[in-house]
Amino acid sequence: MVDRLPFFEHLEQTARRQSSLLCVGLDPRPERFAPEIQADPDPIFAFNRRIVDATRDLVCAYKPNYAFYEAHGLPGLQALRKTVEYIGPELPVILDAKRGDIGSTASAYARAAYEIWGAGAVTVAPYLGADSVTPFTSYADRAVFVLCHTSNPSAHELQEVWADGRPLYHRVAHLAQDKWNVYGNVGLVVGATYPEAVSETRALAPDLWFLMPGVGAQGGDLEAALQAGLRADGQ
Amino acid sequence: MVDRLPFFEHLEQTARRQSSLLCVGLDPRPERFAPEIQADPDPIFAFNRRIVDATRDLVCAYKPNYAFYEAHGLPGLQALRKTVEYIGPELPVILDAKRGDIGSTASAYARAAYEIWGAGAVTVAPYLGADSVTPFTSYADRAVFVLCHTSNPSAHELQEVWADGRPLYHRVAHLAQDKWNVYGNVGLVVGATYPEAVSETRALAPDLWFLMPGVGAQGGDLEAALQAGLRADGQ
Repeated sequence: MVDRLPFFEHLEQTARRQSSLLCVGLDPRPERFAPEIQADPDPIFAFNRRIVDATRDLVCAYKPNYAFYEAHGLPGLQALRKTVEYIGPELPVILDAKRGDIGSTASAYARAAYEIWGAGAVTVAPYLGADSVTPFTSYADRAVFVLCHTSNPSAHELQEVWADGRPLYHRVAHLAQDKWNVYGNVGLVVGATYPEAVSETRALAPDLWFLMPGVGAQGGDLEAALQAGLRADGQ
Repeated sequence: MVDRLPFFEHLEQTARRQSSLLCVGLDPRPERFAPEIQADPDPIFAFNRRIVDATRDLVCAYKPNYAFYEAHGLPGLQALRKTVEYIGPELPVILDAKRGDIGSTASAYARAAYEIWGAGAVTVAPYLGADSVTPFTSYADRAVFVLCHTSNPSAHELQEVWADGRPLYHRVAHLAQDKWNVYGNVGLVVGATYPEAVSETRALAPDLWFLMPGVGAQGGDLEAALQAGLRADGQ
């Protein structure tokens, strides 16, 4: 992977060039496809191609969620690879796979995300600690978004537990920023549905990139999320 | 899936029939294969077939780790499916995939694990709470092993944080046993490398099945793990 720009530089350049902080999800659900897409010989790819064609100049990144491809077996995963190739190297791709394993297993997941599927970044769960993050960050030109405070209703069950004098997700933000970010390629996932958690996390991690899912169907408010989550440099 | 025995009944029957609590991992790493396996047209499957042939009468379950198949792309995942078919319906298969996503995404992962790859159970991470567990447990004939205390060195970073008067993994054991186990098909992952955590978790969750990785290469002691982890009925 010679001459590949480090992921966050690529993301920053793209965001500036396109004047956009919008990351578009690519979560195909064939049962909801319009009939003309369902009739396509490769419906999942056809669905994604339409979205990419319509948004290519408007986004700073795409985010395919692995589950929606894996649920359709080998043809689904083939469509994932084809989609990343179709997006092309100009636009950053974040594979939303929420991986969380250790050592050689995490290395195998990193290899899959970066080398098999071609993603520039991947989402990673924090429950297993540094052992589950380092195998991803050791790819210096790629990046990791660590789940910090997620957008779902039951996020609080663990993430807001009061732990050593603060909510647990504060500890995750702290670990991600100060301990796991050895190579400068760690960002955080902070759900837009919890603007207070977004602004508290921003205070703890002033320089990290945030991936903020939850605007739209899940009820997150774009204005509030941006106000809470933007860095001092407006990104 | 008519007439499929609920997973834990299947596991219990198998454990009794084979007089075994041994779950054998199937984690193929082609770079370590013997030359005659490397020469096979389907080396990953050939490797697994050898293990299964040699252990079929000695185990209560097999546990392929998804990462080692995904790292080899579509042929790797094809070999995963072929392996599960080769094991056959007589022996339980736990897909070690450590999934952790929410709502429709978690449902897509459940569909993949159970319907595409054919697993009877899957490992699931707890950080996102009930939303990430229920889509798996709602398959009444399948099961979930929730990560509670894992076997790796950095497990303590989050799992042993003191939260509301107890280590966080105690809370996970409590949630898994009392809140998430609505359908009676939840077990726990408790690493054999931490026998004290195993025995504390057993006290909190006397009836749940434990999946205890870490014996062998990771340094876990079999005797100590069994002593700490067995249920009152000896399983």
